[in-house]
Amino acid sequence: MSGVLRASQASDWRQPSPENMLYMQLDAGQVVFELAPDFAPAHIENLGKLIANRYFDGLAIIRSQDNYVVQWGDPYAGTASARSPGSAGNALDAEFSRSAEGLAFTKIDSMDAYADEVGFSSGFPAGRDLSGERTWLTHCYGMLGVGRGNSPQSGSGAELYVVTGHAPRHLDRNVTLIGRVISGMELLSTLPRGTSPLGFYASPAEHVRIRSMRIGSDVPINEQMQIELLRTDTESFRDLVEARRYRAEEWFVDPVERIEICNIPLPGRTLN
Amino acid sequence: MSGVLRASQASDWRQPSPENMLYMQLDAGQVVFELAPDFAPAHIENLGKLIANRYFDGLAIIRSQDNYVVQWGDPYAGTASARSPGSAGNALDAEFSRSAEGLAFTKIDSMDAYADEVGFSSGFPAGRDLSGERTWLTHCYGMLGVGRGNSPQSGSGAELYVVTGHAPRHLDRNVTLIGRVISGMELLSTLPRGTSPLGFYASPAEHVRIRSMRIGSDVPINEQMQIELLRTDTESFRDLVEARRYRAEEWFVDPVERIEICNIPLPGRTLN
Repeated sequence: MSGVLRASQASDWRQPSPENMLYMQLDAGQVVFELAPDFAPAHIENLGKLIANRYFDGLAIIRSQDNYVVQWGDPYAGTASARSPGSAGNALDAEFSRSAEGLAFTKIDSMDAYADEVGFSSGFPAGRDLSGERTWLTHCYGMLGVGRGNSPQSGSGAELYVVTGHAPRHLDRNVTLIGRVISGMELLSTLPRGTSPLGFYASPAEHVRIRSMRIGSDVPINEQMQIELLRTDTESFRDLVEARRYRAEEWFVDPVERIEICNIPLPGRTLN
Repeated sequence: MSGVLRASQASDWRQPSPENMLYMQLDAGQVVFELAPDFAPAHIENLGKLIANRYFDGLAIIRSQDNYVVQWGDPYAGTASARSPGSAGNALDAEFSRSAEGLAFTKIDSMDAYADEVGFSSGFPAGRDLSGERTWLTHCYGMLGVGRGNSPQSGSGAELYVVTGHAPRHLDRNVTLIGRVISGMELLSTLPRGTSPLGFYASPAEHVRIRSMRIGSDVPINEQMQIELLRTDTESFRDLVEARRYRAEEWFVDPVERIEICNIPLPGRTLN
């Protein structure tokens, strides 16, 4: 893989646009996400309103379930002390999947347990049905989603989660994914696991404070992360996938010859 | 799933035998493993010799790579200060797979990216080739393996690793798996990630001390963990798999109707 990256050209890389980047400040450091407006425009717009209202600042990570997810939002949601979403909606129509039309898809040749076809769109792992009519983001490690209640229209972006374990792909098409972690994942994945059911923290003292959440374009330019991500619609990326499918490294006795969508790395390189 | 467990009979459960259990004491608590002698008898025998020699006591976890593995052994392996393995061998023949003959296999109906067939043998997730001649353990979350160098005959059990991220199934049939974590996984999965290449800790100060490793039958009876694991060759387990394949919970909009080998929980219940 390192050979593929060394051979890549400048044009194989892209800088995510600041309005599609999300910065979460924790006491321990910064987690940065890239958002996927091609898949969840309404949820991302609503999240933007929440963030503009400083909704998350001072809220907390309230759940860390081993081999599953971390989740954050208002610990007092649903009580009289709940924070107001301001102008943001609190129940959006689901964006679990979208029409495949008009969205480029780099198909990966793989047997997949959960989707007829898998590949990448707009730099994110995605599934498609056999007819090629619908496409959706897949719950790989590091993906960012919007928590919801039992109603499919109950998500708003006020509760967010990140996959921290083996891909829970059974969630695909059941909940709206809106992006993925591109930096700082270890700050989420190493959080102590909560001891209450579903990994919720048992007491407020365990909550992990969120200092702030900001959309990249609202972050002062000298504090914006300068990062480039390998485009997934390039020859270099195809070469990378094949280098992971056929393992030529001396260590491998069996060259594998197989690949799975959530085992394909999405390389980034920081510039500052 | 909880309904399936409630409906289970006493005969659906088994207690792992103490000689197939492995206890690792860290300062933060205890990690317990079940070993898989049906798959890696020589490695497990050799590991038993290392443990009988107290090889691991005072050694350390030296690596934690995000979304991959933690690894432990002698930080000074390969140097003049290396600890002696005593009577244990230091380079065993590979046990990457074994003959499928004589080993019961509960097949799971699933499309799998890495194996022709998947299922469970002796309570562990396993793959098989289409001819049904060979079978091997699969690198699901929590699986325990034996590190090796470039030679397939370079593993001994003196370096061990546990999968702490999305299943790195490309390692299947390339390295010897010997068991899995059945308790205390969060002590490994939340370890700080190492900042050197491959997640190795950058300095000895970061090493996580191993107080001791013991085979269960050498642990005083009153300190042995009393745990039962759901048998994977029972109707109850088949019911559990189907309950995870077809999600009947109200929350699910799409019932999924699919399952993947590393997304099937292996329930345990502690008795003490």
